[in-house]
Amino acid sequence: MLTIDGLQYSNWDRSIFEQMRAGGLDCVHVTIVYHETALETLRRIGEWNLLFEQHGDLIMRVNTAADVLKAKENGKTGIVYGFQNCSSIEDDFSLIEIFHTLGVRFMQLSYNNQSLLATGCYEDDDPGITRFGKQAIQEMNRVGMVIDMSHSAERSTLEAIELSERPIAITHANPSSFHPALRNKSDDVITALAQSGGMLGFSLYPHHLHKGTNCTIEDFCTMVAATADKVGIDHIGLGSDLCQGQPDSVVEWMRNGRWSKVMDFGEGSAKQAGFPKQPAWFSSSADYPNISAGLAAHGFSNIDIEKIMGGNWLRFFETSFGPA
Amino acid sequence: MLTIDGLQYSNWDRSIFEQMRAGGLDCVHVTIVYHETALETLRRIGEWNLLFEQHGDLIMRVNTAADVLKAKENGKTGIVYGFQNCSSIEDDFSLIEIFHTLGVRFMQLSYNNQSLLATGCYEDDDPGITRFGKQAIQEMNRVGMVIDMSHSAERSTLEAIELSERPIAITHANPSSFHPALRNKSDDVITALAQSGGMLGFSLYPHHLHKGTNCTIEDFCTMVAATADKVGIDHIGLGSDLCQGQPDSVVEWMRNGRWSKVMDFGEGSAKQAGFPKQPAWFSSSADYPNISAGLAAHGFSNIDIEKIMGGNWLRFFETSFGPA
Repeated sequence: MLTIDGLQYSNWDRSIFEQMRAGGLDCVHVTIVYHETALETLRRIGEWNLLFEQHGDLIMRVNTAADVLKAKENGKTGIVYGFQNCSSIEDDFSLIEIFHTLGVRFMQLSYNNQSLLATGCYEDDDPGITRFGKQAIQEMNRVGMVIDMSHSAERSTLEAIELSERPIAITHANPSSFHPALRNKSDDVITALAQSGGMLGFSLYPHHLHKGTNCTIEDFCTMVAATADKVGIDHIGLGSDLCQGQPDSVVEWMRNGRWSKVMDFGEGSAKQAGFPKQPAWFSSSADYPNISAGLAAHGFSNIDIEKIMGGNWLRFFETSFGPA
Repeated sequence: MLTIDGLQYSNWDRSIFEQMRAGGLDCVHVTIVYHETALETLRRIGEWNLLFEQHGDLIMRVNTAADVLKAKENGKTGIVYGFQNCSSIEDDFSLIEIFHTLGVRFMQLSYNNQSLLATGCYEDDDPGITRFGKQAIQEMNRVGMVIDMSHSAERSTLEAIELSERPIAITHANPSSFHPALRNKSDDVITALAQSGGMLGFSLYPHHLHKGTNCTIEDFCTMVAATADKVGIDHIGLGSDLCQGQPDSVVEWMRNGRWSKVMDFGEGSAKQAGFPKQPAWFSSSADYPNISAGLAAHGFSNIDIEKIMGGNWLRFFETSFGPA
């Protein structure tokens, strides 16, 4: 069975890569930046290049679906780059192709706030995809960079699905019907996403889960099953949003970047400002087998478990990561 | 016969690409930056990506020697990126691999002035390769980016040849014995370069030529023959330094960047400040056949002409453009 995680932003080091191997993780879409400029993004890529040099026995960079299979064959975890915001392309559409050449395969059009391309899920109003956003979608379609609307607002997301000539992704979010967080997605969005051939990655971040840290594996699998009943089994996968080993300063950077003079707590609060505690059954990259076991216990067939754990993402990668 | 030019910085547009095709140019190492920062360099690459989209029937990007042959087969001119200075990597060794991934295959360690890596040929004193320079040479050797010392000073150049574990290049310069310009190279340098397996590209820029604009094709071929007698036929090629169609503001940028408050005239003078006029027999990219004809008239064998016109560069590309 192939295991692919649609998003992580862990504090990567050798011990985490070893846990990924222990958990049988064949590929993970890693966030390399949140609010970084183009130049800062190059530095993050430089840091990843060093990780590949130092831990090449455990990880390898992945540009294509074929590379994912190569990683699996070689007993390594494939690493796919993504941006959680569009700050890296600054105001320059031509940086999309350049970052694609450097291996970036996912870009969120906005992160919580209004961006130059689209509206974020915490804004009061959502005027939809901007003029630059329409150009960026065309260019992302052309080169094969996936539009990710995980942190975007409803109208922008529906418009992105409509405007994009290729299926898009919500790499890490859950249905609002499971847990009504601003970051989770309406049935309208999830249905439109699946109907257009897109992918939803189920999040394991406590703020996206019913009962938060206390969400059980059975709660989670019930949500997966309800979504599969609604939109079919072929458009869902994992997008754990695991932020393993990160200090709380990192969640502050995610939420505040350089834009907020006063502390914004995002999905948290002044009382619960830091990273929330993971559910016990998914506390590290070693825990993917708990999910496949949970899905089996819930009654999913082996074929369906294979699709959810990685097969659907692989098929999506096959048609999304290069020119159409 | 394969024709490869070891350096141009023309004001590229469709008419110049058409002349390249008319001149049978199979591959050219193009300068994409002089004094640009990392971010400005990304913009230049973005501009080239647009040129490839718009003129993909005439040009293609080349990352390897095999790509050069593919370009020739398809009747296109292959484009290899290079930097004439090291400003693009700023103070960050990790940008070397990143720009290599983006297709950059040559970097000069300095351009006329002292850089963070090496000394330029117009400085009064040359303390040799710097501490950062030694690290950069190792990293360039690792990823397969060619060290180019065309605009560097004597000691730095000899040290680069010595320190580099892989052959280096002087992509565009002539022997000082032919014309004693500060930019041309001593016999010591040319001999050490060739003995280490490196390549010298003969320049057709008037300031590097005996009699300047009035240099004849016979003068040029006599110089080629004298160099071949000295260092052998296998380490020489063309590096025209053609700056076709550029306004004089471009030569001012090359010479002054952002470093000089008062105008520096480089190889020119206040009276001859702009680009000098090319010799009549090499005025555009359509004129490569004049050179091969001149070499034949001088008495070079067909085999030797093929080496000089492109065969030697191709062999050098084969072993230089990737990890060792």
